Amino acid sequence: MNAEILCVGTEILLGDIVNTNAAYLARELAALGIGCYYQSVVGDNAGRLAEGLQLALSRADMVITTGGLGPTYDDLTKETVAEMFGLSMELHRPSLEKMEAMFKGRGRVFTKNNEKQAYFPKGAHIFANDQGTAPGLAVESQGKVVILLPGPPGEMTAMFQKQVRPYLESRSTRVLRSHTIHLFDIGESTVEDMLHQSMLDHENPTIAPYAKLGEVQLRVTASAADEAEAEALMQPVMEEICALFADHVYGVDVQDLQHALVGRLQELGKTIAVAESCTGGTIASRLTDIAGASQVFLCGAVTYSNESKQKMLGVSAQTLEQHGAVSPECALEMARGIRTASGSGIGLSTTGIAGPGGGTPQKPVGLVYVAAVTESQEKVLELNLSRGYADQRKLIRNWASMYAMNLVLELCREAE
Amino acid sequence: MNAEILCVGTEILLGDIVNTNAAYLARELAALGIGCYYQSVVGDNAGRLAEGLQLALSRADMVITTGGLGPTYDDLTKETVAEMFGLSMELHRPSLEKMEAMFKGRGRVFTKNNEKQAYFPKGAHIFANDQGTAPGLAVESQGKVVILLPGPPGEMTAMFQKQVRPYLESRSTRVLRSHTIHLFDIGESTVEDMLHQSMLDHENPTIAPYAKLGEVQLRVTASAADEAEAEALMQPVMEEICALFADHVYGVDVQDLQHALVGRLQELGKTIAVAESCTGGTIASRLTDIAGASQVFLCGAVTYSNESKQKMLGVSAQTLEQHGAVSPECALEMARGIRTASGSGIGLSTTGIAGPGGGTPQKPVGLVYVAAVTESQEKVLELNLSRGYADQRKLIRNWASMYAMNLVLELCREAE
Repeated sequence: MNAEILCVGTEILLGDIVNTNAAYLARELAALGIGCYYQSVVGDNAGRLAEGLQLALSRADMVITTGGLGPTYDDLTKETVAEMFGLSMELHRPSLEKMEAMFKGRGRVFTKNNEKQAYFPKGAHIFANDQGTAPGLAVESQGKVVILLPGPPGEMTAMFQKQVRPYLESRSTRVLRSHTIHLFDIGESTVEDMLHQSMLDHENPTIAPYAKLGEVQLRVTASAADEAEAEALMQPVMEEICALFADHVYGVDVQDLQHALVGRLQELGKTIAVAESCTGGTIASRLTDIAGASQVFLCGAVTYSNESKQKMLGVSAQTLEQHGAVSPECALEMARGIRTASGSGIGLSTTGIAGPGGGTPQKPVGLVYVAAVTESQEKVLELNLSRGYADQRKLIRNWASMYAMNLVLELCREAE
Repeated sequence: MNAEILCVGTEILLGDIVNTNAAYLARELAALGIGCYYQSVVGDNAGRLAEGLQLALSRADMVITTGGLGPTYDDLTKETVAEMFGLSMELHRPSLEKMEAMFKGRGRVFTKNNEKQAYFPKGAHIFANDQGTAPGLAVESQGKVVILLPGPPGEMTAMFQKQVRPYLESRSTRVLRSHTIHLFDIGESTVEDMLHQSMLDHENPTIAPYAKLGEVQLRVTASAADEAEAEALMQPVMEEICALFADHVYGVDVQDLQHALVGRLQELGKTIAVAESCTGGTIASRLTDIAGASQVFLCGAVTYSNESKQKMLGVSAQTLEQHGAVSPECALEMARGIRTASGSGIGLSTTGIAGPGGGTPQKPVGLVYVAAVTESQEKVLELNLSRGYADQRKLIRNWASMYAMNLVLELCREAE
């Protein structure tokens, strides 16, 4: 079975929005084992939409569209599909009633043009929309399937997870299940090299590496008659990989380093405070982006100037004079200082040169020290994060933040 | 003249990356007045790439591709275009020498497969790559133009700005120039409503509104024989719009609020320090993301707990007891506290309920207080940022950060 993704919307063609829907659907299809060789975008234009659909249906068994299901005259995806398959449009009363109730609940007037959203090609399978007004649908005809989803990403992804994914799985006699292992501080090429034979040997489950946002993810995917069998197939492979990369695995099926860290600290009942120089609040911002972070995150200090390092963290004038602000000594004093000041279990710090200015031959752009201290442990890390790019400031700040969060996870593992 | 965008890369088809290149190019083409009716994605597969190119060239005068210019065997965009137009591949010595020098400078070995990147279809116009190894190129043949750009967004956008845009302009007898006016704290529909007649009246320059990242941008675009004429056409319209939205314009042709703020503080020679509760370091992180921020940004405090608000900022126990941490009184004390502690010219603070938990009927999720103080000014703002979405924590934190930065810009305007 192979599929194509066809996104409909003039706003995509004008570059006013980034097409995150295509990436989301592509990833979901890949996870379901459905091949996808083309993605296309057309505007809100009946002729070009029909042409795009015809072409996609000539190449694939299934086409998934996003957009063009709304109430206005230029929303015409449903109508185009109905015409293509020679199907009449019929009112779906439950959809109409749900929409009317939704408008009433929000105190909004239900204008006539909204009714359009409750008409569907005859025989369509309807996907209710929990997040907005326009339902989605699947039309099966002439041996092909066309799945039409709304354009707003929040509506589309919720509909896919809750309804389209099960619909697609129900059409197959097998289920696909995946786990993702997250590795940090190791390059994708090293991972591929170490796993090469294993990747060739394993056909089910498969192992696929992805380099993403400064880390490497390994996705293990099994195809089986049911979920239990899929899990049983994956278990030994997961164990093998986790053992092989033991020093680098920071989580399985987690969202990212900050979620892994906040989750781990919650489990352990530990608190953290952060003193940031070169990362300038990035670590604090990432940790507090997570709902419930206040249970473990006490406070942060963004000490950009030397004076603030002394005042807020108690870094000694002597250390700053003798070793400079970018030094392991300063990083340690910052971490100790924020831990003492806040009364947290863990103190974490970063100090370095993010660039583009400020570098010297002795202390070049990209030199960063990261320190983490607890009551009984102290660790400081020297990082050389420059890759020689012209605009690597964000990259250096991102990596420094990740190394800092990973250092705390390492401390937690060692303390166990 | 119309164009199509064809992005090449299996990683896009698998959903491993979001296709930001297509959105960037779409926006640039629209700004140049070049129509675009289709975007497509194909994988690293010679047959489907050739098919996709043929189809695009049958529909458009120009095709812009991204990706597939690298050194490996599956990078085949150049070769496919050469074959399609019956052109031989020739070595471009300056590109080869530049690449060899780059490898040498980084202490890396120049492996043989890299040479591939210095071969081009005969007669191609070559775009040097300042950010990476693979140059881009334009091939003009049979009345059509194919422009091939590298896949990594940093390389592609830099190449487009510096070389492809001038190349496209040189092919036209007219130039297009744009200015973008940035508005904050006003809805897109209000802007459209107020500008409706003006948008209809003006054909050159055109006025187009865009809602982006919590703000509204107005792009004014003039078509003229040369740059001076375009600027002269835009000037009265720019003045009219800036006067109409005077209270909401925070910048013209700026990148975003943080760039506008850091730039303004640099001009005024003023310094700032930030005390953040609900925004948790987001403002500090955004300001310090900008190179040179250290000239104006002294320090930040992320005071999540009440204890840290007292210790780090000197907020009084009485204020916390009587009014709570989410109150105008607390916001003001936080802003005064960080200003005094840091010796900065401006103190800025945020305190509020980002959710999803922590709300009460009196102080619901989305209630945020923002305060800014200088030697002679004090301002505090009450915001109700809830939109009733399930997952609005990030939205509330983003808006609160933007309102806070905008408040400082307002203070600066008032102090003039």
